[in-house]
Amino acid sequence: MPLPPPRISKSRRPSSPSPTTSPVANGNHFMAELPAPVNKDVDFANYFCTYAHLYYQKVMLTDPVRMEAYYNAVFKNPYHFRNKVVLDVGTGTGILAIWCAQAGAKKVYAVEATKMSDHARDLVKANNVDDVVEVIEGSMEDVLLPEKVDVIISEWMGHFLLRESMFDSVICARDRWLKPGGVMYPSHARMWIGPIRSGLCEQKWNEFENAMSDWHCFANNMESQYGVNMNVLTKPYLEENEKYYLKTSLWNNINPSQVIGTSAVIKEIDCLTATVDEIRELHVKFSLRIKQDRTRLSGFAGWFDVHFRGSTQNPAKNEVVLTTAPSEDNPTHWGQQAFLLHPSVRVNEGDELAVSFLMVRSKHNHRLMDVEFTSELQQSSGQRHLPVFSKFYIE
Amino acid sequence: MPLPPPRISKSRRPSSPSPTTSPVANGNHFMAELPAPVNKDVDFANYFCTYAHLYYQKVMLTDPVRMEAYYNAVFKNPYHFRNKVVLDVGTGTGILAIWCAQAGAKKVYAVEATKMSDHARDLVKANNVDDVVEVIEGSMEDVLLPEKVDVIISEWMGHFLLRESMFDSVICARDRWLKPGGVMYPSHARMWIGPIRSGLCEQKWNEFENAMSDWHCFANNMESQYGVNMNVLTKPYLEENEKYYLKTSLWNNINPSQVIGTSAVIKEIDCLTATVDEIRELHVKFSLRIKQDRTRLSGFAGWFDVHFRGSTQNPAKNEVVLTTAPSEDNPTHWGQQAFLLHPSVRVNEGDELAVSFLMVRSKHNHRLMDVEFTSELQQSSGQRHLPVFSKFYIE
Repeated sequence: MPLPPPRISKSRRPSSPSPTTSPVANGNHFMAELPAPVNKDVDFANYFCTYAHLYYQKVMLTDPVRMEAYYNAVFKNPYHFRNKVVLDVGTGTGILAIWCAQAGAKKVYAVEATKMSDHARDLVKANNVDDVVEVIEGSMEDVLLPEKVDVIISEWMGHFLLRESMFDSVICARDRWLKPGGVMYPSHARMWIGPIRSGLCEQKWNEFENAMSDWHCFANNMESQYGVNMNVLTKPYLEENEKYYLKTSLWNNINPSQVIGTSAVIKEIDCLTATVDEIRELHVKFSLRIKQDRTRLSGFAGWFDVHFRGSTQNPAKNEVVLTTAPSEDNPTHWGQQAFLLHPSVRVNEGDELAVSFLMVRSKHNHRLMDVEFTSELQQSSGQRHLPVFSKFYIE
Repeated sequence: MPLPPPRISKSRRPSSPSPTTSPVANGNHFMAELPAPVNKDVDFANYFCTYAHLYYQKVMLTDPVRMEAYYNAVFKNPYHFRNKVVLDVGTGTGILAIWCAQAGAKKVYAVEATKMSDHARDLVKANNVDDVVEVIEGSMEDVLLPEKVDVIISEWMGHFLLRESMFDSVICARDRWLKPGGVMYPSHARMWIGPIRSGLCEQKWNEFENAMSDWHCFANNMESQYGVNMNVLTKPYLEENEKYYLKTSLWNNINPSQVIGTSAVIKEIDCLTATVDEIRELHVKFSLRIKQDRTRLSGFAGWFDVHFRGSTQNPAKNEVVLTTAPSEDNPTHWGQQAFLLHPSVRVNEGDELAVSFLMVRSKHNHRLMDVEFTSELQQSSGQRHLPVFSKFYIE
């Protein structure tokens, strides 16, 4: 039995114009639980292996929004780096570490968990900063540095900010290695949710229906041709496909005009003080106001921004913001995370949505997320609808 | 840094009309070595997880060549099953086990490593053979049966037969649980190689060249815009892409007319006596004769067949063959494995190819394979060309 289509993938297509999904088999698991211990080898097989490819590094290095933000953050605030000791968490090819050195850092420790570290070392040398940048292969949790650092820089953001749970490693680095009064790059992060309309709703629903009608043909054929009644598997097949087509959040670059109402900040993170407990589980209530008339609420989009403001003691003179909000001119490889409702809902200008949002880590993979939305529509006429509950998986 | 495109996948698209590739980062590793111990959790993350999805089970259950062969093997030789004790290695949804029960088996042990076992148990019950079929969740290497068995049935074949190394588990099952005089279903397997022409050669070469010209633009931009010279990574990027586009063997359903010469059996396996040592490394020399004039040798295709002949003591009355050879009418989800030469070679009718073939398991994943071809062309005129050496990865 040969291995079949890559329907489960350890990775996402960030640069694709069309949405992709990648489910993983889970049961119902939205209860908060103690985090399971991580098997490092499995984590490598599922996660880090991707970053060991130059192909992926190039994808990230060719996102101009990402590149400009970090470049400006460093070079417009060089006094944060000049003669300072810097730690780069997850250096990849070493670009951020090289920039820090070019901005005048005295020493840069560039930590990388994968074999990409070899390439980083070569790149550092070829750019004549090997007297400043020391590339260290290892996971941040294990690495021992000979000194504390003035600045921690890291590009740790996953889809909808927290996917990949890489910020855990940044927190660990900060708690172990940042000097009192040290600065985080970025210093702050925010998660956003906005109401959207999207043709993907119908598309995914059609795909789901096609998958099921295909199943029924298959089941009939199995009975008539091979004498095996498959009906007992129809429900689990439906559940598997419901999860895949309808409950898996989608990578998407949304046009700003698709955002049909106000957006809400659902989480603010101060990178200098945040704890893992604070991000392990998010439970937030917020309201959104519909601003387009006679439209449909297809669901919600999630995105983030991060800010480079330095610290209160040591503020950046030139603040920089990196946003992954819907944008026609400045899309990013992060895109937005779309959570689609089935069915979508008729809405009008002035309608209010009261939303209760829960996000926890997947029981099966601490780098993936399970999400719940409970949304209650109150029409501008005053009429209230029953709350709608939807589960999603960020795979 | 969000996870990027699924360029590395744990799985292949068997039913797709177009070829797909899925590389994994490896170095040069064609030396025979002692097999590394397998980390079972990693093996599950990389391999078994796929089979825990009904979607994939359905892909296999809708391959008519596969289904007909096993169905006929069982029901045209029911005396091999009637009142017999049977072991099904890797039962998946339990289809083969159900068929064995329907053919009159006294007892069927159906072993499955994934949670698919729950579905198998339900299916067995719904088809009223739960008094005969016992589904056991566990890996074949660990499972304890209360008795020895008369027949072992299994659909263990991966791409080019040996990918996935699942036959190891069948061998283990046989050595531990098959009664003397017992029968293997299938009983024999053969691996084939044939010379092919294919438009994929040029396609893959173009993709490779595009990737590299894209890299050069990227590197220029990194230098001019961000002050980092990337040239030191040009060679590793080339190597990574060479591996991905040119050295990774491709899943393909080849038209028989694309096979431009004689094919050779490169390995015969007697499932009753084969050992893991015998399949861990294949080193074979063989000749192929070109049978089309003025054509190009684009490379080689590999495929397999398996035979259901029973045993010498206990032969099948109705032999069945399952072949994955190039076929217009009966393609399979296994397709053929294409190994493409860059550049392709002009050949003519009557030319002879002397081929030396080596296949070993990947050092990084015992379920994947590394392959070497050394081919020497002797033209019908008598002129000999220098041997051409090519490495490939079966990912």
